Formats: sequence, C-alpha cells, structure tokens
Amino acid sequence: MPRYALTLEFDGTPFMGLQRQAHGPSVQQAVEEAAQSIVGHPVTLFAAGRTDTGVHALGMRAHIDIDRPFDPFRLGEALNARLKPDPIAVLDCVAVADDWHARFSCLGRAYEYRIANRRAPLTLQAGRAWRVPRPLDAQAMHEAAQELVGRHDFTTFRSVHCQAASPLKTLDRLDVRREGDMVIIETAARSFLHHQVRSMVGCLGLVGLGHWTRADLVAARDARDRRKLGHNAPPEGLYFVKAVYPDEP
Amino acid sequence: MPRYALTLEFDGTPFMGLQRQAHGPSVQQAVEEAAQSIVGHPVTLFAAGRTDTGVHALGMRAHIDIDRPFDPFRLGEALNARLKPDPIAVLDCVAVADDWHARFSCLGRAYEYRIANRRAPLTLQAGRAWRVPRPLDAQAMHEAAQELVGRHDFTTFRSVHCQAASPLKTLDRLDVRREGDMVIIETAARSFLHHQVRSMVGCLGLVGLGHWTRADLVAARDARDRRKLGHNAPPEGLYFVKAVYPDEP
Repeated sequence: MPRYALTLEFDGTPFMGLQRQAHGPSVQQAVEEAAQSIVGHPVTLFAAGRTDTGVHALGMRAHIDIDRPFDPFRLGEALNARLKPDPIAVLDCVAVADDWHARFSCLGRAYEYRIANRRAPLTLQAGRAWRVPRPLDAQAMHEAAQELVGRHDFTTFRSVHCQAASPLKTLDRLDVRREGDMVIIETAARSFLHHQVRSMVGCLGLVGLGHWTRADLVAARDARDRRKLGHNAPPEGLYFVKAVYPDEP
Repeated sequence: MPRYALTLEFDGTPFMGLQRQAHGPSVQQAVEEAAQSIVGHPVTLFAAGRTDTGVHALGMRAHIDIDRPFDPFRLGEALNARLKPDPIAVLDCVAVADDWHARFSCLGRAYEYRIANRRAPLTLQAGRAWRVPRPLDAQAMHEAAQELVGRHDFTTFRSVHCQAASPLKTLDRLDVRREGDMVIIETAARSFLHHQVRSMVGCLGLVGLGHWTRADLVAARDARDRRKLGHNAPPEGLYFVKAVYPDEP
C-alpha cells in the first residue's frame, strides 16, 4: 500500500494526547477519521512520538498507508479541510518508501519547553507556557542541566506508567536560555522516557528558583528513584519540535 | 484622587475592542468592573489607544483614578484576581501624578502585525496572526513600506469611521522582516488614524504577493481616496506593543 509521511502541527489543549484513547479525543483519532473520510477505508496513524494531554507539536512526523496512490499535495489539502475545526494542521505530506516508519525509522527527537517567568496571569500564552511567578536564574538552570546530558539511568525522571524496556537513555542536548520574560528549554535525544522532558524541566525549575543546587540535581539523578523527583512540569509548556530521519538534514 | 497607571496585556479575541460598547464585551468594561468591585465606586479607564474587535495588546497603557490611596502592587494583584477568566492581565501598576494622562500624555505608539505566510491552517496561532497562503516577498514589502514613512495625508489608509480632525500623520517607522514562515511588520508614530495600520499592512500584502508595485502603493497614497485602498488586513494579526511617555526610555 502506498505510504505517506505527514508533518503535523497541533494545539494539544483539547486532546487527551496524540495516541488514541477510549475516554476522549486524540490527535490520532482526528487524523485517522479525516483520512478514512477521504480514502474510504480504515487508516492507522503511526507517529514519531506520543504526547500527553495538553502537549503541543510544531513538527510531529507520522505516516499512514492508503490502498491506492494519491497525489500527496492533494491528500494534505484534503486532510486539512476535513480536520477543521480541530486545531491540527498537516504542514507537509510526501510519498515515502513502504519501509519508512515514522516511529521505527526515527533517529532523534527534539522538544522545546516554554516557561513564562512572570507574576501576571497569561492571556495570549494561556495554555501555551508554564507560568512561574518568581524569578528564575536561567544561567544556573543551564549549567545544572549539563549534568543530565549524556548517557544516564533516568529512572528518577520517568513516569511510573513508562513502558520503555530500559531507563538508560543518552541525552544529546539540554539548553536553557532567557528571552525577555520567557525561559526556553531545548532538548534532543534519540528517544525519551515517558514524562522525561517534563520531569527534567520541573527539577530545573527548582534549580532556577534556588531551591535546588546543581548537586541536588545530580543526587536526584543518581538516586534512580522516582520519589526523588522534585517536580513534574505541567504539559502546556511542552512542544514536540522535530523528528529526524535518515537522509534528512 | 490618586491616579494609577496600568500596563495591560490582552487577547482581543473575545472583545468588541478596548473601548466600551453598548452591544458587547470590551476590555474597558472588564477592567472598570474589576476596579469597581475592589474600590467600591465607579471607575473610568483611559487608554493610550483604541483597538478594534480581535486586536491584541502586549503593552497597552491606561490609567484609573481611585478615591483613596492604594498600594499599587496590591491593586494590580487584585485587578488580576478579579479579571479572571477574561484574558486580560495587568503587567504593571504604578502611582502617577494626577496630570499624567494615558491618552493625552502619550508621545508615541508602536504596533506589530504578524502574518503567517503558509498554506496550512493555523493551530497554535489561530486568532493570533493573518494567514496568507501564497509566498510573500518581505524584502519588496519593506522597500515599498518606506514610501509611507514620514509626513503624509493618510486618507487612503483611514477608516470612513475615523474621528481624527486631520488625515495628516507622521509615520516614524514601518519595517517588514521575515522570521521563518512569519512576516513581521513593526510600525511607530505619535498617533495613528483608525484602521491605519491594518490598511497599510493590507496594501503591503498586495506588494508582497506581486499584485502591486512600489509605484502602485505611492499612487494609492497620493490619491488620498479610501476607494484606492487595496486591502484592509484582518484584526487578529495586530498587536498594540508599546506607548511612550515623557521621562520614560
């Protein structure tokens, strides 16, 4: 069956996450239903990553198989037309080889986390950032974050619901910077554990507030114990930014 | 009566604009009602500028008079608490002299207009930008925009409902730049006519699409005729960014 790779952007607010759920709306269900209404047969969406309730995507990659060839541009346009009014957009749709797999071919994932470091409630950024009222030291957060880069047992930063076989992951990058009243955290790895980014960000927040030292973060990491987690940051600040595949820049 | 200057941020989507309207919700009504519920007497909000339905503000300045002294920080906090769930935030509240006037003391206003130059529908930016599907030449827009900088009769770019005494205005700045798929337009002047920014942006959009040359923009300007307006850009891309006062940077 011809296979099509999709680049998806979505506002995660109204969804129970990317993956199909029995108890509420999901990005997967919305895209599968839109595709089925176009091609006339059931369609399954495979995505590079799962996202939690309220987590957003700027460039999620996914694929679907269709029983006959379709012009990719027209397929993308038709999906966008059927997805309305759901806040999901197909940014790109291309035909790919049938051994290209959005999840299993993926060589790396990148996320961004946005903290609005301000006292006033959020208006235009409501549901789009984590508001932290007290001043954060972004430089201290960045320096401490380097303790999590590299190969580590991330058990402390892993949801109890995580289904990964191993808690060992190699974190390629965890950078923190300030832009006005926003503190932006960028991270990349081949793959992440469930809640890993939010758990790392929550602990970096404690560092930024001065509640934790860099040594406290190292101790939490080395404890390999979820009970040593300082804080799990809320989902609304998290964005799935990019998935990397072979032969792509 | 003690006077307090407010810096307001708001998502304009649910409002009929800043100014109080008989037929729908306004930012003015929301702030006045919040203030009255705190201080116990009617309060009038004066703002640096009016904004249309759907237009946003990142740093609108305004003032209110209260019959007795109030700690400014606590007043700002109380306003934010009462404004919920309206998407209006008081970013700053300070006591000012009673001859400081948000509108009449204002020496300059700055706006930003955001165009999402992409084919796919908007998700996270829905209601926050004007989506233009076909490619815009931001450099051509910027060059043509310089024809509007300086002192001109802006009758072509003025709403028929504009109440200003004169259509003569001096535009200090009109800069266009591209950031990825966003085209950002920044403009500043002592004051603007009603719909002036949206009308200038609409015509620059025609330049960016190649439908108008720089000479066409000059001809529209010199016609001093609203019927020569090419296009009025929609409100959701417009942000009131800043108001400038004496003795402020």
